[in-house]
Amino acid sequence: MKRQRHKEKLYYLENNFPTPRFLIANDGKEALDIAKCEFGGVAVLKQSYGGYDGKNQYFLSGNVEDFYFLREIKSTFVVEEYIDFDYEASVIVVKDKDKVFAYPPTFNFNQKGILVYNWGPIENGKIVELAINLAKSLDYVGTMGVEFMIKGENIYINEFAPRVHNTGHYTLDAAFVSQFENHIRAISGLDLAPTELFCYAGMLNILGKSDFDPKEVLKYGKLYWYDKREVRKRRKMGHINVVGKSIEEVKHKIYELIKIIYPEGL
Amino acid sequence: MKRQRHKEKLYYLENNFPTPRFLIANDGKEALDIAKCEFGGVAVLKQSYGGYDGKNQYFLSGNVEDFYFLREIKSTFVVEEYIDFDYEASVIVVKDKDKVFAYPPTFNFNQKGILVYNWGPIENGKIVELAINLAKSLDYVGTMGVEFMIKGENIYINEFAPRVHNTGHYTLDAAFVSQFENHIRAISGLDLAPTELFCYAGMLNILGKSDFDPKEVLKYGKLYWYDKREVRKRRKMGHINVVGKSIEEVKHKIYELIKIIYPEGL
Repeated sequence: MKRQRHKEKLYYLENNFPTPRFLIANDGKEALDIAKCEFGGVAVLKQSYGGYDGKNQYFLSGNVEDFYFLREIKSTFVVEEYIDFDYEASVIVVKDKDKVFAYPPTFNFNQKGILVYNWGPIENGKIVELAINLAKSLDYVGTMGVEFMIKGENIYINEFAPRVHNTGHYTLDAAFVSQFENHIRAISGLDLAPTELFCYAGMLNILGKSDFDPKEVLKYGKLYWYDKREVRKRRKMGHINVVGKSIEEVKHKIYELIKIIYPEGL
Repeated sequence: MKRQRHKEKLYYLENNFPTPRFLIANDGKEALDIAKCEFGGVAVLKQSYGGYDGKNQYFLSGNVEDFYFLREIKSTFVVEEYIDFDYEASVIVVKDKDKVFAYPPTFNFNQKGILVYNWGPIENGKIVELAINLAKSLDYVGTMGVEFMIKGENIYINEFAPRVHNTGHYTLDAAFVSQFENHIRAISGLDLAPTELFCYAGMLNILGKSDFDPKEVLKYGKLYWYDKREVRKRRKMGHINVVGKSIEEVKHKIYELIKIIYPEGL
């Protein structure tokens, strides 16, 4: 079944999960009108189908006219309040028929709708609780990722992904059993494994790059290379996992790795 | 090059590494004579070639006559003092041209010369130092395992294995980079990764067994199954890794797993 973003948003609303205020538009023209009239031109427009990694999402900061090309689109849109959030965080949940566990939350850094790096654990019991409640509410089985926007004391669910999630790749090295093995355990009826971490950890995505020296990377972390033939702009070519005895150690390694993978800067 | 156990023993002697007292015999007959005259019939006879996992090793506890079949063997033997050690421990060392790291020591439980389980880390700075010095002394590159017999304050090197080692399989789950990846890093000229552990860990070998329920195993640990076609008596068919926040937790999991894999007892 295709993703239907407006149904996801309605689900949050109907089940009292906090999410940014939104309206549903029947087509691009209506979406632009709503953005202008209801949100003063400052809004996020998301096509209901086919959106991931920032695709088919449009950030309007008063410049509604720049997006007139959306008028021609005849499919459903979600028009959402723009949240000037402090940071994004996420929680990876694993659930079988009886049990539900959550890996600790991570801080996520995105650019243009794509995750660049994340690290954790960060302390936020509230989002862990929300993620677990969402998995329970959906009666889900398997691994899922739930993304949150954090603004001061306010928490909003941004979206959830009913699958293993990019922000959970660090679990390959920081947890005894990763999000991947726990997914297989969950859908196979095997016992879920605990999701506790024994160290601090982080992950850097390798976006559209293959011209770095892997030897340099291995000084700081473990390289997961997807061996994709084609290097496209910002395509996920691989990722690097790091661990540390403190969050500072993890941050340091991520920053050193950014210099290696993105010498031109992020 | 074939292993030559007598040369290994002479190396320890010449380089001041502590090892049980030994004599070298030219054949089986001489070995039995030495065992009787020099060690009062209580000794360990090891053929110099082809010995691992307890193969071609004979424990004499005064019963020299029971081993008369060895008189026909024409190759070199090591005749070694029998040490009634308290326990065996080992250290996995990784070394490249410049650096040497050691994973923390483990307690090992063997039966009939084959490792059944191990756990760690245990505290023993002295054997870590000896293992590192041995790797340096040999000018070795790669991963190696060094086995020790511990008797009170006394430490003896039992043997070393110039390769990844069964007592280091736990590093797949308890260290960021395992003995296997560090071996590849070492021999490829890549930077060695740190060998610190973030948790307690253990390993149970699955010896000559395939008739257990893997679902039960997954309640306690991760199953590594070698997919060997033939189940021979005490053949290494796979192993199970466990982790824990304390050594007690690890021991508990190993004991529960023993009930599953070896319901008849060890």
